Amino acid sequence: MAQAIRETIEQYVELMTTGPAPKLAALYAPDAVVEDPIGSEPRRGAAIEELYAALDVMEQRKAELHTARVNGTHAAFWFTLVTEVNGHRMTLSAIDVMEFDDEGRIVSMRAYWDPAELQFEPI
Amino acid sequence: MAQAIRETIEQYVELMTTGPAPKLAALYAPDAVVEDPIGSEPRRGAAIEELYAALDVMEQRKAELHTARVNGTHAAFWFTLVTEVNGHRMTLSAIDVMEFDDEGRIVSMRAYWDPAELQFEPI
Repeated sequence: MAQAIRETIEQYVELMTTGPAPKLAALYAPDAVVEDPIGSEPRRGAAIEELYAALDVMEQRKAELHTARVNGTHAAFWFTLVTEVNGHRMTLSAIDVMEFDDEGRIVSMRAYWDPAELQFEPI
Repeated sequence: MAQAIRETIEQYVELMTTGPAPKLAALYAPDAVVEDPIGSEPRRGAAIEELYAALDVMEQRKAELHTARVNGTHAAFWFTLVTEVNGHRMTLSAIDVMEFDDEGRIVSMRAYWDPAELQFEPI
């Protein structure tokens, strides 16, 4: 199980680079709940795919997985996503916490990052 | 609030190096719950201090904070603790997820790491 979860996390971060949004959404169980960023209104169903569709308009996306911890059906990992948007380079670095079901699908995701700390620099 | 929480996290990691256990336990609210590692039986009250008392018998403790994300009363951070025990160097690298109360005390902590992945090497 741990190995399958680890591979899903690697795939998740890879898909943040490549998209498309439906492939990211497909990693979730149908009844999954997403809180991104932590403390925001929880998203379910189509609202989860919308979160990733926002990525698809960004250019030069490059996501990197720094570290991941997996225990049972629980996981936490740190990644950084760099994209280009409106002539600026945007850097988002978050710690995501996930829980998985017995089939290895994500049932919950909470993303720890502060929108106030998004970095923008002119390209 | 974010700054106070960030300082508490830095203090928490520093106290993993220096101890003692009661100072670590004092960072928690009286009704706090700790799950360390994630998936294990939740600890409350005196059982929280016992967790840190286990550290006090380890030698040459050195904890390092790699990264931390804070949003509102939520935080997640990655740290590594290296200690010496029974002639071996033990390395524990975990992602801790915490929630804080309005006074900046920890009300919940869940530690993401797998005991099977503890590293031991002869000194």
